[in-house]
Amino acid sequence: MFERRKTRTVEVGNVKMGSGHPVVIQSMTKTDTADAALTAGQIRLLEKAGCEIVRLSVKDMRSAEAVEDIKKETTIPMVADIHFDHKLALEAIRRGADKIRINPGNMQKEQDVAEVIDAAKEKKIPIRVGINSGSLLEKVTGKTATADAMVASLVKYLEYFRKRDFNDIVVSLKASDVKTTVEAYRKASDECDYPFHLGVTAAGPPRDGVVRSSVGIGTLLMEGIGDTIRVSLTGDPVEEVDTAKRILSSTGSRRFGPDVISCPTCGRCQVDLISLVEELEKRLSADTGADLTIAVMGCEVNGPGEAKAADIGIAFGKGKGAIFKQGKIVKTVDASCAIDELLAMIGKEQEREL
Amino acid sequence: MFERRKTRTVEVGNVKMGSGHPVVIQSMTKTDTADAALTAGQIRLLEKAGCEIVRLSVKDMRSAEAVEDIKKETTIPMVADIHFDHKLALEAIRRGADKIRINPGNMQKEQDVAEVIDAAKEKKIPIRVGINSGSLLEKVTGKTATADAMVASLVKYLEYFRKRDFNDIVVSLKASDVKTTVEAYRKASDECDYPFHLGVTAAGPPRDGVVRSSVGIGTLLMEGIGDTIRVSLTGDPVEEVDTAKRILSSTGSRRFGPDVISCPTCGRCQVDLISLVEELEKRLSADTGADLTIAVMGCEVNGPGEAKAADIGIAFGKGKGAIFKQGKIVKTVDASCAIDELLAMIGKEQEREL
Repeated sequence: MFERRKTRTVEVGNVKMGSGHPVVIQSMTKTDTADAALTAGQIRLLEKAGCEIVRLSVKDMRSAEAVEDIKKETTIPMVADIHFDHKLALEAIRRGADKIRINPGNMQKEQDVAEVIDAAKEKKIPIRVGINSGSLLEKVTGKTATADAMVASLVKYLEYFRKRDFNDIVVSLKASDVKTTVEAYRKASDECDYPFHLGVTAAGPPRDGVVRSSVGIGTLLMEGIGDTIRVSLTGDPVEEVDTAKRILSSTGSRRFGPDVISCPTCGRCQVDLISLVEELEKRLSADTGADLTIAVMGCEVNGPGEAKAADIGIAFGKGKGAIFKQGKIVKTVDASCAIDELLAMIGKEQEREL
Repeated sequence: MFERRKTRTVEVGNVKMGSGHPVVIQSMTKTDTADAALTAGQIRLLEKAGCEIVRLSVKDMRSAEAVEDIKKETTIPMVADIHFDHKLALEAIRRGADKIRINPGNMQKEQDVAEVIDAAKEKKIPIRVGINSGSLLEKVTGKTATADAMVASLVKYLEYFRKRDFNDIVVSLKASDVKTTVEAYRKASDECDYPFHLGVTAAGPPRDGVVRSSVGIGTLLMEGIGDTIRVSLTGDPVEEVDTAKRILSSTGSRRFGPDVISCPTCGRCQVDLISLVEELEKRLSADTGADLTIAVMGCEVNGPGEAKAADIGIAFGKGKGAIFKQGKIVKTVDASCAIDELLAMIGKEQEREL
């Protein structure tokens, strides 16, 4: 349905990003970076949840120095997020950061940026130019952070890099408004062939943040734009990674274990489908290897159709369900043992696929 | 940024839908429709949550008869969802349903559909032609529910209505796969000018369902497609309405009270921003009238910028925050009383707007 926007490939540690590679999941630590042990602990939790690249804030020299200690205790590539002071970027690079993120809005002096570029070039690490609606390059913007102002800020800033023949770049253009974000990325996609890091900035607490991120990031992924994503939530960063995986599954960009298709139920449903699906989800979560679609449907309207189309499905009637496998009914079971039966079948299915 | 797709206007009870009107929020009851008291109770909860049209399943004559009793106990327009048996549709129309939803996949006999059309015409109520990936019109589809098969099913079915000069139609084309859903609506938008009811069918339990619905419905709304939306979750229908409101806010389609913009926090943040935002959200939820954007930001990087751009904002530093109003700092406060101060200011703001 959509083709990925063609981009260069950029390597962050051992992770490749760009149109030739799967869309990469990022998150960011919320601990004090100078506390290396605490930060490394959060990174390990994020990695376990599926985070593939982690960013951390380097706000002072102690944080920059901690990069080296944190790297010893963790394995996924690390991005140092630097604002205002280019010396922090230079120190983070010396300490082994796998990538640097700088913000045109607060590192505006061309000579400072040039020093960062040269240091990154020497260490062969990429730089993310992270445009943000909350801070734009002064010389090109008016008072409001429109998509045009964001793209103008980007284009102007990229000149610094072009002059130094540096192309190991990732670009982001995050606004807190979803429409502005989408518009900015669309416009920027005509301006360069660098991989895009997608995100809606300051998306808010989880319930709003999940929806805003899904709409913004999802809309762009659905048109082939985006090479790495970061969901921002005012909450646990593990939830950011979880949401990122669900967005990538929804858009068909990647798979992370079984997909559960289940109906919302209605007056037709004669089993407690909500509880059954909750049980299935809970017991499934340990299995993440399978590429299966599992349908759990409450009645005979769309139940048989969806169950047939899935790898494994169940369509319930009055207290009983017909289990489908690869489009054929293989068993009729009581609702009370339906989840056990489905899981047993999923287990067999996984075996068969190995 | 986008223009709404031009459609006819359709009236469901006292609610108008189509490109000239705001996008309408729907949900569906999950109770046994034949139990009128129980169903009316759920409808009142949904209405309180912001549901503007409610659908209920009419699976037998007792349910069709209950439509009349339920209508007496509720105020929002009601859609009767009918499958298989056109006589149930005729009875629901007699009992005062404000709209009928039928499914080409299981009411295929043209004569049966014609009777429903004529009854709806006489009562001046609209019909939703609800295509679903789980059940398609047999004569036009292959084995898989592709977007093309769904649109072919629609086009073929619409002929029945055209022959009877009936245009009081709403169309939906829901698939359980997000990409197929988006593609089907896009293709169908060239085929007719009827309002579209958007949804991803069988989107699953809340965490997946919210993301899938946000991506699917959000992508379409962002290109101007969609006149009413229903979020399907295997869970509490009130959560469907809540998610629908957040999707409509994200896409800029509608507003429902204050928008909270808040940063995800990082190593820079020196206050417990997550708890502060949670407190703000909790205490704000009672106010739903305001059209304000409120920014709560954890540091000096994008904090002042986002706080300035919001109607009311706070950008925290070490233990203290600067409160912005209409772009200017009006006060510097301790984190411990920041939410009280923000709420007091929001209260004043609301007064000013009245």
